[in-house]
Amino acid sequence: MLYAVIMAGGSGTRFWPASRAAKPKQFLAVHSDRSLLTETADRLTGLVPSERILVVGSADHVELVHEALPDLPRENLLCEPVGRNTLPCVALASAELERRDPHSTQIVLPADHVIEPLEAFQTTLRAAVSVAEDSRALVTLGIRPTHAATGYGYIEAGGSIGEALGSEIFEVRRFVEKPSAERAAEFASAGNFLWNAGVFVWTTAAIRAALAEHAGELLAALDAAGPDDLQRVYADLDSVPVDVGIMEKASNVRVLPVGYAWSDIGSWSALPDVLAADDNGNVVAGSGTLVDHDAHGNVVYAEKGHITALVGVDDLIVVHAGGATLVCRKDRAQDVRRIVEQLRTMRPEDV
Amino acid sequence: MLYAVIMAGGSGTRFWPASRAAKPKQFLAVHSDRSLLTETADRLTGLVPSERILVVGSADHVELVHEALPDLPRENLLCEPVGRNTLPCVALASAELERRDPHSTQIVLPADHVIEPLEAFQTTLRAAVSVAEDSRALVTLGIRPTHAATGYGYIEAGGSIGEALGSEIFEVRRFVEKPSAERAAEFASAGNFLWNAGVFVWTTAAIRAALAEHAGELLAALDAAGPDDLQRVYADLDSVPVDVGIMEKASNVRVLPVGYAWSDIGSWSALPDVLAADDNGNVVAGSGTLVDHDAHGNVVYAEKGHITALVGVDDLIVVHAGGATLVCRKDRAQDVRRIVEQLRTMRPEDV
Repeated sequence: MLYAVIMAGGSGTRFWPASRAAKPKQFLAVHSDRSLLTETADRLTGLVPSERILVVGSADHVELVHEALPDLPRENLLCEPVGRNTLPCVALASAELERRDPHSTQIVLPADHVIEPLEAFQTTLRAAVSVAEDSRALVTLGIRPTHAATGYGYIEAGGSIGEALGSEIFEVRRFVEKPSAERAAEFASAGNFLWNAGVFVWTTAAIRAALAEHAGELLAALDAAGPDDLQRVYADLDSVPVDVGIMEKASNVRVLPVGYAWSDIGSWSALPDVLAADDNGNVVAGSGTLVDHDAHGNVVYAEKGHITALVGVDDLIVVHAGGATLVCRKDRAQDVRRIVEQLRTMRPEDV
Repeated sequence: MLYAVIMAGGSGTRFWPASRAAKPKQFLAVHSDRSLLTETADRLTGLVPSERILVVGSADHVELVHEALPDLPRENLLCEPVGRNTLPCVALASAELERRDPHSTQIVLPADHVIEPLEAFQTTLRAAVSVAEDSRALVTLGIRPTHAATGYGYIEAGGSIGEALGSEIFEVRRFVEKPSAERAAEFASAGNFLWNAGVFVWTTAAIRAALAEHAGELLAALDAAGPDDLQRVYADLDSVPVDVGIMEKASNVRVLPVGYAWSDIGSWSALPDVLAADDNGNVVAGSGTLVDHDAHGNVVYAEKGHITALVGVDDLIVVHAGGATLVCRKDRAQDVRRIVEQLRTMRPEDV
């Protein structure tokens, strides 16, 4: 049976002040009027029924997950006592699915990305499922670069190994960490370098075999742990991404190149990649109202009912949420964390 | 007896979103933790007792006036049914003082300016009172320009007519409307051009004589009107500033040049003239908290408890108040009215 595992444990601060420790990005409606987590689950409609969707999230966010996904059965939310990146998350979900259905296939995907259009995405996933089930490979989606992004990891595709349901599948030569601007430009024009979208498809048997080979202790610990032991087990784990812990090491990795719109929405400045701009190049997220006079290329986020007024300003990020206003140059979005760092000391209740 | 008349009828929109039609600038704490109206009355402490302070304000703002000035006797608030600029306001106060004390002297001053320091201001007012009482002149304060301001009217001083309590007094050659940048530069360096601060000192007899000569119908109408007739009388009045209606026409006008800090705080961009900047040149008004990273020369206003975070931005006005956020280039502060005009159509409740 086909299952989905939504990785919803993120705790980013780059969307402050809209995101807070108590309500990270995946629970915000930054892309539409639904939260990113709700959109992620909705994107599986028709492919995976809600009773076979698992969510791995933080124990601190149980209520937020159920608000975002009211149809999610309680037992389908796997709580991590602390965040340890995606390798423990994948291992935890695989331990659970081994108990429920050892012959299952998994679509594993982040809760806080945007990927469109729906139909193309589902077509690709069906192809990936077919490859994963036929070849026992670990399949990953690779997004064809639209620009020389330095904020994404890349996958270098090797030789073609044929087609599945109309999609060509490739061997993976290597995973590459976020590159310099120069290397990103090479990658973007090379043709066989793809953005690593963090969407994986594998059978439970295949990922467990890979975990046993490359992260045996972790798998054994999570297999043995009941819900009451997780706290103790997680406390001792290292934070490791599944890309590093498994994908870079495994030999049976395949990539399925896709050409649709994708963003990990890593910061406020990424919103123009996934939201339409108005005639002045301003992008409005959330449900607030923009009133502008001679203002261009700005990114605005505010909750329903709030007015954001811009006069004579260009290329700014302007966010109002929860008793705080952020104004940041669009090319300095990464530095929002500097504000969060200052607040941790000054006013920890506002982080 | 010495009275003060505080003109508090303004209804500016240039401080949107902090000021609204329902709560204009004089009721805001933009300069300290007290409203500008409260500061204006406090500036008279020791000079005019509160039972001899009259406030002329809009009938719409009765509660706001009494909140700002809890010691003001109810009968000392003169309500204008509609705003008609300062000439009717001066005539209304003079009609009232003619009834209360025809031998009174008046200090007439705007409710929404900043003027410092207190001691120098009071010394100047005592000198002006002495001149007004001795010579029956209409005395106005003229601020020595600190820069070539184009946003203020100017007074050209004529010959000296001697000294009063240590202050030299001059004849007035003419009043000049807000000048071009070129003329402002000439004025600022000329030595005998002063900013028109809109602060006047005169006896009730002298201003009534001038009103009788230059605005006889207005004076007669307001003298005759009981509180119940004001609505009808005001409806027919023209909007005229007292500078234009009286001061430019009268022959017995004197100016007392003063060298202290003054601003009419005509827009958000004027706040740096009257508030100290931090090490990065940022000025914070209201009681909000600024958290900044590489941000310089900004003007920030927010209410208590609110956080404004600035990253990599310079020379902006950032205001949060009442469900709205304004971000405006500092040199475009006059264009805030463009936003207010748009809102009048779109969302009149937010103006």
